Amino acid sequence: MAAPKGFSAPVSAEDRLIARYFRPLATHPGAFGLIDDAAALTPPAGCDLVLKTDAIVGGVHFFPDDPPDTIAQKALRVNLSDLAAKGAQPAGFLLSLMLPEGIDDGWLEAFARGLKADADTYGCPLFGGDTDRTPGPVTISIAAFGTVPQGTMVRRAGARAGDKIVVSGSIGDAALGLLLRRDPGAAERWRLAPPEGEHLVSRYLLPQPRNELAGALRRHASAAMDVSDGLVGDLNKLCAASDAAARIEAAHVPLSDAARTALAAEPALIETILTGGDDYEIVAAVPARAVAELQAQASAAGVTFTVIGDVVVGPTHAEFFTREGKPLLFKTTSFSHF
Amino acid sequence: MAAPKGFSAPVSAEDRLIARYFRPLATHPGAFGLIDDAAALTPPAGCDLVLKTDAIVGGVHFFPDDPPDTIAQKALRVNLSDLAAKGAQPAGFLLSLMLPEGIDDGWLEAFARGLKADADTYGCPLFGGDTDRTPGPVTISIAAFGTVPQGTMVRRAGARAGDKIVVSGSIGDAALGLLLRRDPGAAERWRLAPPEGEHLVSRYLLPQPRNELAGALRRHASAAMDVSDGLVGDLNKLCAASDAAARIEAAHVPLSDAARTALAAEPALIETILTGGDDYEIVAAVPARAVAELQAQASAAGVTFTVIGDVVVGPTHAEFFTREGKPLLFKTTSFSHF
Repeated sequence: MAAPKGFSAPVSAEDRLIARYFRPLATHPGAFGLIDDAAALTPPAGCDLVLKTDAIVGGVHFFPDDPPDTIAQKALRVNLSDLAAKGAQPAGFLLSLMLPEGIDDGWLEAFARGLKADADTYGCPLFGGDTDRTPGPVTISIAAFGTVPQGTMVRRAGARAGDKIVVSGSIGDAALGLLLRRDPGAAERWRLAPPEGEHLVSRYLLPQPRNELAGALRRHASAAMDVSDGLVGDLNKLCAASDAAARIEAAHVPLSDAARTALAAEPALIETILTGGDDYEIVAAVPARAVAELQAQASAAGVTFTVIGDVVVGPTHAEFFTREGKPLLFKTTSFSHF
Repeated sequence: MAAPKGFSAPVSAEDRLIARYFRPLATHPGAFGLIDDAAALTPPAGCDLVLKTDAIVGGVHFFPDDPPDTIAQKALRVNLSDLAAKGAQPAGFLLSLMLPEGIDDGWLEAFARGLKADADTYGCPLFGGDTDRTPGPVTISIAAFGTVPQGTMVRRAGARAGDKIVVSGSIGDAALGLLLRRDPGAAERWRLAPPEGEHLVSRYLLPQPRNELAGALRRHASAAMDVSDGLVGDLNKLCAASDAAARIEAAHVPLSDAARTALAAEPALIETILTGGDDYEIVAAVPARAVAELQAQASAAGVTFTVIGDVVVGPTHAEFFTREGKPLLFKTTSFSHF
């Protein structure tokens, strides 16, 4: 029991592991090829740094037998999703990797390969990290940092009565994908075609953070956050931070074809869809006059932004209504560990 | 199994936990009181950010029954120690906290109290974080960031033949403290007075990072790193990064009275002292002409810097010699998890 701290020169087995698997990700000169104790970043002039940390834990946020490359990608992408919602351009990340006995070279090779692919795709290189043994499950904590022009980080606070509420992509896929991953028989009950089932599971396995929307959000959104704990609960948080209420038409919430199929077969799934989480879409409040421009810019980046409701004066939470104008009530509004 | 991501507004039990225990640590305006998805930091003009992450794992880096306040402090201090060695002034940190079932309010209250004390002492406020359930042990990953005037981060690379090697404080206490924590009977074999045993255990429990030395290191050191994996192995890393050799007089390595007592009783402990790690002291290469000034500045801050050897031309590692000029050989030079 002692503390092997930091990525360092190739001396120990730990150092060899780092040199072999992670040095190729450290493409920024300020990472010093991972042979120093820390990294140095010269912030672009006139920019703020946006800072975020999120961890994922084996058996909690992913299945231990998920493909290691997608585990790595999920770990990075849940952080990238927050940077996107805040309007920030990714700049880099730090990695803490806790590994149990029995993780072999093949696992590490695939993990590093997935992480490298995303670091390249999202322009988010590795700045440094730490590897440790754990008697627990694989645990990955990432701290990501991005940049915004000074003072322009998109906040949760800022939604104003009269704004429209928009949400990117589609909601509920990952939560349904998780149910399907646990109970493959559900595919038949939900009358899913095989590609529909695969779509849902893949949305659980591998979030698609909306980093291409960062610039448009910075220009147009009054407030934004990523949808990770469930649309209902996350909108509640946005309302609380903004001291505003939201009135949402549940029927306007964008669903994938697969989710629509499942919901038709089992209407009670609406609660899973709206509160299950793991969406990694973006919900934003946008002045009504700016919605069309935001949608056009998102569309140019290949992403839809759908209007689902309005910011109104009222108690600081989101109310969801059916087509018939009846309020939807949920047993729990969002996922919580505690 | 779903992902509750980020510190957020007080809605769920997780949010209440964050609001109650961690919001008081988020004193920087860019932390937005932990009610946003991310934090914003405006870097001081003309400064680089120094970035570091280190995690500690229950049963690996600390005992699960260690006092929660000291666990929190250790988690932060192992990161602060790296910032110190790099010459950086602490600016803030992000926290990922993975908690097993059974962690109660008393534990969390003490944990947050310890963390708050250090955040205040070291001027290093909480910028954001993530709390998760884990089926494994308590796991704490911290990403710390500091600032240095642009281009002045003290590197591992940079030691030059002719430099003196200096080390702060005393070496070996924590490694002996760990042995003593595991085997209290060793106190008698080592002929330790009770305060000596307590000193060693406290040095294991609670590192004393040398952040007061950051400015002096930036002005005078050619290269520096913190001693966390053991003096021998860490000096090897500094030599490798600097493409230089070091010749160290083992008898000059500064020891506490307690370590000296133990070593007199059991001379084989020299290997534990020099390779055991967890010291969180600073080893640096310093031009000979600057040593006295560095020592004076350290002394003014209440810390000793002891000359233990020289940077020389030769194979890129550190050689340790006895008083009689014989090389000391070690079974392992530093701790490695892998």
